[in-house]
Amino acid sequence: MIQIAIMGLGTVGTGVAKVVAENSRQIERKLGEPLQVKTILVRRFKDGPYRQLMTDDFTKIEEDPEIRVVVETIGGVEAAYEYTRRALAAGKHVVTANKQLVAEKGCELLSLAKKKGVNYLFEASVGGGIPILHPLTQCMAANRIDEVYGILNGTTNYILTRMVRAGASFANALREAQEKGYAEADPTADIEGIDAGRKICILADLAFGHQVDPALLPIEGISRLSLQDVKLAGRAGYRVKLLGRAVRLPGGGRTAYVAPHLVLESNPLSGVEDVFNAVVVQGNATGEVMFYGKGAGELPTASACVADVMEAIQQSPRREEIGWSPDSAGFEDPLALPSQYYFRVEGSLADAAAAFGRVEVLSENGETAFLTDRITGQDAMQRARSLKVLACMRVLG
Amino acid sequence: MIQIAIMGLGTVGTGVAKVVAENSRQIERKLGEPLQVKTILVRRFKDGPYRQLMTDDFTKIEEDPEIRVVVETIGGVEAAYEYTRRALAAGKHVVTANKQLVAEKGCELLSLAKKKGVNYLFEASVGGGIPILHPLTQCMAANRIDEVYGILNGTTNYILTRMVRAGASFANALREAQEKGYAEADPTADIEGIDAGRKICILADLAFGHQVDPALLPIEGISRLSLQDVKLAGRAGYRVKLLGRAVRLPGGGRTAYVAPHLVLESNPLSGVEDVFNAVVVQGNATGEVMFYGKGAGELPTASACVADVMEAIQQSPRREEIGWSPDSAGFEDPLALPSQYYFRVEGSLADAAAAFGRVEVLSENGETAFLTDRITGQDAMQRARSLKVLACMRVLG
Repeated sequence: MIQIAIMGLGTVGTGVAKVVAENSRQIERKLGEPLQVKTILVRRFKDGPYRQLMTDDFTKIEEDPEIRVVVETIGGVEAAYEYTRRALAAGKHVVTANKQLVAEKGCELLSLAKKKGVNYLFEASVGGGIPILHPLTQCMAANRIDEVYGILNGTTNYILTRMVRAGASFANALREAQEKGYAEADPTADIEGIDAGRKICILADLAFGHQVDPALLPIEGISRLSLQDVKLAGRAGYRVKLLGRAVRLPGGGRTAYVAPHLVLESNPLSGVEDVFNAVVVQGNATGEVMFYGKGAGELPTASACVADVMEAIQQSPRREEIGWSPDSAGFEDPLALPSQYYFRVEGSLADAAAAFGRVEVLSENGETAFLTDRITGQDAMQRARSLKVLACMRVLG
Repeated sequence: MIQIAIMGLGTVGTGVAKVVAENSRQIERKLGEPLQVKTILVRRFKDGPYRQLMTDDFTKIEEDPEIRVVVETIGGVEAAYEYTRRALAAGKHVVTANKQLVAEKGCELLSLAKKKGVNYLFEASVGGGIPILHPLTQCMAANRIDEVYGILNGTTNYILTRMVRAGASFANALREAQEKGYAEADPTADIEGIDAGRKICILADLAFGHQVDPALLPIEGISRLSLQDVKLAGRAGYRVKLLGRAVRLPGGGRTAYVAPHLVLESNPLSGVEDVFNAVVVQGNATGEVMFYGKGAGELPTASACVADVMEAIQQSPRREEIGWSPDSAGFEDPLALPSQYYFRVEGSLADAAAAFGRVEVLSENGETAFLTDRITGQDAMQRARSLKVLACMRVLG
């Protein structure tokens, strides 16, 4: 019998308890012995099926030698950070879905885990139930990873899908997402790209081997996205998608950012709709591979946590190869990347052409919408200075 | 320094040597020491960059204690089977891309590997460079896997794409694929669904834990597919795709098969074009996740082999959880599965309706093309007996 603890009984924590119970046969067959949730750390006791497992005292987990793995689903940094450190220090494996903690403190926690000879695993922190971190670090281990990008946030992808499909404004699409439970009452972390930013940081950390600081990541969400631009892009054969993107730069540096992009309809990412996520990884040998599925939700995310629990046990004492350097030097401004740009500006085509030279016009009537040639972001910003810019987005590819 | 051997210097074997050389920095950083190809088994010596590593004597590998991992890229069963057994018996890890050998003898070879305390890994045997077997067995380990299906053969997907996009006949599309090097001079294994069949057997073995015998798998390829049916399907909003499919049945049994299907254009699989592959895995907690990329090619497939080499070394002595029972009882005829069916028959709508009751007509002029309600395959075959059937395919979903 393998005993584990869960810290935090929100959506994912409850899901972990459910998956352990519902799929006990599958899990036991693979582990060779049963898996059991022994203790659940909560802030406030609640009645329900897990009442007798609850404690509000972390030392009941920390000091229990029978508990071999702790699943942290508290979220945020403060308590989650402290308890994770103490659990690792006590020689327990820790598994988490907490992208904020991994993005901010993952490097340090992985070092601590290594020192203590245990695993710190976080497959569920990116893409929910979609396998992505393991494939990236293991199955593609023989590749030099050159780029990782994708749709990393289901809430914003749902909103964008409604804008494209139903012609809804951002505000209406957001309200709809909230009614369906896809967006929280305070949607800031989703719509401003903060959540996607944490995920692309983790992907960049693992892909390039150096810490990318989420506090320094350039992020742009979709809260100021106008339906007009979504429609203009659509007529030109593009879908607007919020992408996180991490790129290895030729000189040895790297960059990453989150921003809305125009994605050609022939690109598989453009067909990723509703709350689905998709991550594309580009390896120098494998080429592009894509991982697609529901990026959130109680059971998908929980099942990724439980798979990590199983792996932590099977890989005991620990698997070696996961980790990255705390040195964040070499992180460059994503404006250095070349890209086609979409602009909508006040003024005529002549004004646009005066600033950008050859452009591809998408619409002209008082305002002009156009696509530039492939230029760096710095170049785009500089040329646009003479124009009154109403909207600006990169084109993917 | 970790020394490995390659058996067979065809496309994939050569790719393995290239990936080991070209990505040596990435590989060394992850392994902590360099990886080197020491010996290459060939049937005939050839000049070239690997000339000094070649031997035609397998005992040079078998009896070399420095060689820890053997990459088998001979293909087929006979020699590959014998050398794999002997390498495992000699205590060496074996890694392969050989789907035929894994589908036919994988269960036995995994048992032998277990007895000898080494790994037998074969990520590259399905989907080339696309990570799929590891995600299925590890990342989704907390799921009950209910179904696996997908586009498992790039050659036939290229041919189907040309039929849809360019209106080419099967024969012309095949010729084009051969000219581009996507199809072999003898294309039988691809176009008759044999290659896809081996892959769906491996996926079913891993997903359900019981051997599925490739010799008993019902397979139907695309060699008799008519352009007319591709066009009729297209007008009704479907793409024709050759799918391998493995399904867990409610009573505890399982089934699998390969056949062309009609796939709705809104399904992500319908957008998988040219030589790309995509595999969908349905877990009871995670829901559907899809893995997408180029399913073949020298470097993608080779990089999957090299990743397995790295894993074999890092997981030494061996990882436990991969394997399945040799007991193939419980395999049922896929005609038991319910599905909508597409038929094209000689005769009128009245004939079709007399046999099938309510149908959705797609075309009628001497011949009638129609979609049935959701019925079992047995039911469909029985009802069709009174008709002269010109074409019949399942509809996915």
